[in-house]
Amino acid sequence: MGKDNSELLFSTEQISTYPGLKLYEQVVHYINVRMERGDWPADAKLPSVRSLAQELGVHRLTVFRAYQELKQQGRIYVKDKSGYYAHASHAAELGPFTTYSERSSTRRIFHSESTYMADDPSVSVWRGMDGLTQVHAVNADFQFSKALIDPSLLPNRYWRELMMQVFEKHPKIAATYSAVQGDAELRDAMAQHFSTDKHFAVSTDEVLITSGAQQAIDLVSRSLIRTGDRVLIERPAYGPAMEIFRRQGARLTVTDIRPEGYDMDHIEWCLKTEKPRLFYMNPTFHNPTGFTIPDEQRKRLPELAERYGCLIVEDDSTYDISFGQKPPSPIFAYDISGSVVYIRSYSKYVAPGLRIAAVTCRRQLMNSLLSVKALVDNGSPLLNQKLFLQYFQSPRMQQHLKKLCIALQIRKEMMETSLRDSGWTWTSPTGGLNLWLQLPSTIKPNELLAKSIQKSVSFVPGNVFDPIGAEGKTHIRLSYSYANELQIREGISTLLRISRTM
Amino acid sequence: MGKDNSELLFSTEQISTYPGLKLYEQVVHYINVRMERGDWPADAKLPSVRSLAQELGVHRLTVFRAYQELKQQGRIYVKDKSGYYAHASHAAELGPFTTYSERSSTRRIFHSESTYMADDPSVSVWRGMDGLTQVHAVNADFQFSKALIDPSLLPNRYWRELMMQVFEKHPKIAATYSAVQGDAELRDAMAQHFSTDKHFAVSTDEVLITSGAQQAIDLVSRSLIRTGDRVLIERPAYGPAMEIFRRQGARLTVTDIRPEGYDMDHIEWCLKTEKPRLFYMNPTFHNPTGFTIPDEQRKRLPELAERYGCLIVEDDSTYDISFGQKPPSPIFAYDISGSVVYIRSYSKYVAPGLRIAAVTCRRQLMNSLLSVKALVDNGSPLLNQKLFLQYFQSPRMQQHLKKLCIALQIRKEMMETSLRDSGWTWTSPTGGLNLWLQLPSTIKPNELLAKSIQKSVSFVPGNVFDPIGAEGKTHIRLSYSYANELQIREGISTLLRISRTM
Repeated sequence: MGKDNSELLFSTEQISTYPGLKLYEQVVHYINVRMERGDWPADAKLPSVRSLAQELGVHRLTVFRAYQELKQQGRIYVKDKSGYYAHASHAAELGPFTTYSERSSTRRIFHSESTYMADDPSVSVWRGMDGLTQVHAVNADFQFSKALIDPSLLPNRYWRELMMQVFEKHPKIAATYSAVQGDAELRDAMAQHFSTDKHFAVSTDEVLITSGAQQAIDLVSRSLIRTGDRVLIERPAYGPAMEIFRRQGARLTVTDIRPEGYDMDHIEWCLKTEKPRLFYMNPTFHNPTGFTIPDEQRKRLPELAERYGCLIVEDDSTYDISFGQKPPSPIFAYDISGSVVYIRSYSKYVAPGLRIAAVTCRRQLMNSLLSVKALVDNGSPLLNQKLFLQYFQSPRMQQHLKKLCIALQIRKEMMETSLRDSGWTWTSPTGGLNLWLQLPSTIKPNELLAKSIQKSVSFVPGNVFDPIGAEGKTHIRLSYSYANELQIREGISTLLRISRTM
Repeated sequence: MGKDNSELLFSTEQISTYPGLKLYEQVVHYINVRMERGDWPADAKLPSVRSLAQELGVHRLTVFRAYQELKQQGRIYVKDKSGYYAHASHAAELGPFTTYSERSSTRRIFHSESTYMADDPSVSVWRGMDGLTQVHAVNADFQFSKALIDPSLLPNRYWRELMMQVFEKHPKIAATYSAVQGDAELRDAMAQHFSTDKHFAVSTDEVLITSGAQQAIDLVSRSLIRTGDRVLIERPAYGPAMEIFRRQGARLTVTDIRPEGYDMDHIEWCLKTEKPRLFYMNPTFHNPTGFTIPDEQRKRLPELAERYGCLIVEDDSTYDISFGQKPPSPIFAYDISGSVVYIRSYSKYVAPGLRIAAVTCRRQLMNSLLSVKALVDNGSPLLNQKLFLQYFQSPRMQQHLKKLCIALQIRKEMMETSLRDSGWTWTSPTGGLNLWLQLPSTIKPNELLAKSIQKSVSFVPGNVFDPIGAEGKTHIRLSYSYANELQIREGISTLLRISRTM
């Protein structure tokens, strides 16, 4: 088994390193990962309780309890008293061209938000592997699963005119490659914007244009992570980011994010003992919780990162979506040692069809991001960058953001009002796109989802955001950014009616 | 050392598996890789001849000869008789945030063609690590290093009008995400085109839109390759593809490509004994050689791939650039078992600013490419796809290709005429963008390059295309696609004048 273990995403050694997770839950997780990887494909016999207990160095009762839990979840089954077997629907199916990705993530595909929008019938086929992915393919009338902006709230009128200006300025633009790092004019404009609006100074050379924030996370991951490296991540966390790190071979360590911020002692303990290569965080209007890390923690984080040689990856996708006063400055602003890389997407709330995001970091890391960017796509398309620049430099950009924040705040308040008598609890967010709700223990999120989808109401169960797949069973994420006010009122009312029957 | 070896790109075990490469050359290669990885940084002492010989299981004279060769190449130096040391210019410099990419490819960054175009001063800085990268940053008046199409040969006039049509049809396009797989209308149009023009049938579901061919190669690599897997690759080969596979942890096996095609017996031997996970090839107007694999080999390759469980990755970037009769059908057309994935870029010869390429393959592989594509960038921008579709569906596309082929043929012939009396030898290509020339042994490509750059003439020395970095020392690649006829005549004349002084 020694040889096999070396390939595990979660090695036996690592199984005891999730703070706050019960031992049998860790074993559940371990078995799930092995099934997802295809180590135990459909209908394969799982190891006996005794042998797995021995392999993992845990008590037999622990393995027994894990198997009971998995049986209850419908992930494994018992046959003729001969042992435990993997269920077809949850194990990877291996064919002649079974690939790494299939092996590692048949069930654990975290859909990035945008894929929910696909109106393409083929999508429902290739993602029809589990209940959750089917939710995303369903065109629910009451869409609370999409943490996306309602397209009618985005600027649509001006692009045509701006595009004409681009063609006038750059008649050969369609025939022209972008520099790998991105268009220098756009980087220049962004660098200026950051220094006036976000209070941190970067040079044009310290900005890289990527095709969306997700590509940025992927570039950082590929530059820095090697198999077996640790990555510190919030719990709960943005699913696709976890998946990116996992595929790169990282082992995840988690730290809770709470309404008041992080547990800084726990973070320091993690940095010290686990030595993660990077700490991926979403400290402002965090997805899914909406929490924002306070200023004093922001100041301390780069110091800790520097001391323990960890890179902070600050994903700041919704910084501008604030209701009321501006959030504290990005953590990047407090970094003097080059210990933070800052990811800033404009795709989501300005122009999803253009896919423009920016990364800022210091020279040394930039060099390595550039060499990966050169390999993966050779630079984002120039046309999109020049078009976005026209908008970015016009006063319309700031006007749009102001209007957008007001519209989203109204929707958020409408959702909160509709939930008033639910008995569900949440921390009211001061920005972002989502409510993160705790349901009473009598309501199982997945059961609620199954029923609500029948009434055309969709949301995301909390376990999707749990890096270790065990908790979050009492939470759901409701996005208020995609449905309009009427849909919110009616959809929430339907959802609550369903929940009362449970 | 055992532990260190497990991390090597080229393990000791692997060092004897390059057919046709002398043992000392393999040791040279091994040392280069270790230096590039940063295992032996600038001014680090290399192991003694005795200890390295022992470590690699080769004779001490073999290591000695390798060190002599490296000394001659200026990659290592001797100090006070105390031993061999890595040269600063070739070893990786490791800092606190030294990354995987820096360690693995400080010198071996293969620049994708497009990066040559960057007019951005920062590029010359971050790529200023070796002579070759500096070539690419230099704005030579006589540009024969760029295997890119002269922008004045690309369609520039129509985009503006087509863009207007797109905005009229899709007023909210900038606010709309693409499906991960790409716009269904565009995939539909491409599927139809393939079945009429390329004589192979694919459904809309079997087409994936990527941001350039390079992203397609990267997606395939990430879907299929795990650390230690073998990849079969042509020799010579397209540099960035090699780098993509290497970074994914692949070990490369090579097979020669010759004017008459492959050595099929050698390929079968490789498939049988080395069991590569995939065979990356560029069988039509191959870059850099211009060779085209004949029809009978195209028929046999999918059979072999099926028999030995290897996936053929057919990169067909310049299929449409043919002088005279059409090339044989793509290998994909002969595949009945799902053993071929076909990569087709339109970026290069239609609209580099849009970055549109297509991948076709069968369902099972498609599913896994889609899950990687969802993670890496969530789908290519919709705006570009819709714009490209307008052009693709118009008769202008085929008219453009016809005119482009004529223009390139004229440039090719101009270059060949100018080289007539050089004494250099080459196989005249029937398509593509490059001449692959063998120089007399008296002329060292790198020396010629150093001198020609001073006269503003650039080209690419052949060793850049050698997967094992040892051969190709007598070849150079001259691209006739970027410079115009006058520049070709004058530039080649200058180049020959310089060569005669050597």
